[in-house]
Amino acid sequence: MFKKLCLLSVPLGLFAVASIPAQSADDIKPPAGYRQWFHVNTMIVDKASPLFDGLGGMHNVYINATGLPALKKGGPYPDKSMFVTDLHDFTVTDGSYVEGARKGIAVMVKDAKKYASTGGWGFQFFAGGDPKMPMVKDPAKDCYACHEPKKDQGYVYSTYIP
Amino acid sequence: MFKKLCLLSVPLGLFAVASIPAQSADDIKPPAGYRQWFHVNTMIVDKASPLFDGLGGMHNVYINATGLPALKKGGPYPDKSMFVTDLHDFTVTDGSYVEGARKGIAVMVKDAKKYASTGGWGFQFFAGGDPKMPMVKDPAKDCYACHEPKKDQGYVYSTYIP
Repeated sequence: MFKKLCLLSVPLGLFAVASIPAQSADDIKPPAGYRQWFHVNTMIVDKASPLFDGLGGMHNVYINATGLPALKKGGPYPDKSMFVTDLHDFTVTDGSYVEGARKGIAVMVKDAKKYASTGGWGFQFFAGGDPKMPMVKDPAKDCYACHEPKKDQGYVYSTYIP
Repeated sequence: MFKKLCLLSVPLGLFAVASIPAQSADDIKPPAGYRQWFHVNTMIVDKASPLFDGLGGMHNVYINATGLPALKKGGPYPDKSMFVTDLHDFTVTDGSYVEGARKGIAVMVKDAKKYASTGGWGFQFFAGGDPKMPMVKDPAKDCYACHEPKKDQGYVYSTYIP
């Protein structure tokens, strides 16, 4: 179950953390301009999922230019590669799932040295996309635990769709 | 029902046309590089929709750089603006809808003079994304009939999501 939610690089415990902002352990910030980045793929977690309360929404995944060549090769990713999962609400009417307002953004940024204990990736989720609302307190548990099995793809679940 | 399917600029009768390729009435071709364009939004039409047989799939919508400023303003669109709807299969497991292989691409290209009879937009759908497989024979009926009510947004259903 959790594994599926990691397909698009979504932190494992995205909303399972406390509702008060985390004391950010590092300097990860929501990147500017990610809506202009390469659209990697999209996934929806709907109410049929037991994880809907925490992870429900439309997950639009983007990658920056630094990381794109590595995505195409399936990794490894150079430092400063960055994924953003832009999480949105959606409405369902007569079988059509239509994108709604932003719920938050999840960030994965590569720094092999700084984040050596979590596969070289730093993880954070910002409620509403607000830089003052980082929600992940324990990235090793909430995020990396799910990504670790994907070591052979640079700890990334997403694959390149031409 | 049909209206919802037009939200993302999807031609009305996308798959309702005959299964043999159309004799293309113009020179619309699948554009190169659209996967690098701005990702406008995503919609899914699933099996709960009565239109699933014809339009089922994940609709990833992109716009080229020419059209993007107009999208942000809600129209009107200058000539050479272009939308692509990249239509993919998807799988559903435990409430997670995951993107699959490409089914085809729908194109909307603006040329106010050339396509004056259809709101200034040319429409085509290419099965599998194959330039040799244009499927729309009657764009006025299959596509424009649905877009016409959105004249105040330049005949486009999609809106800008920052």
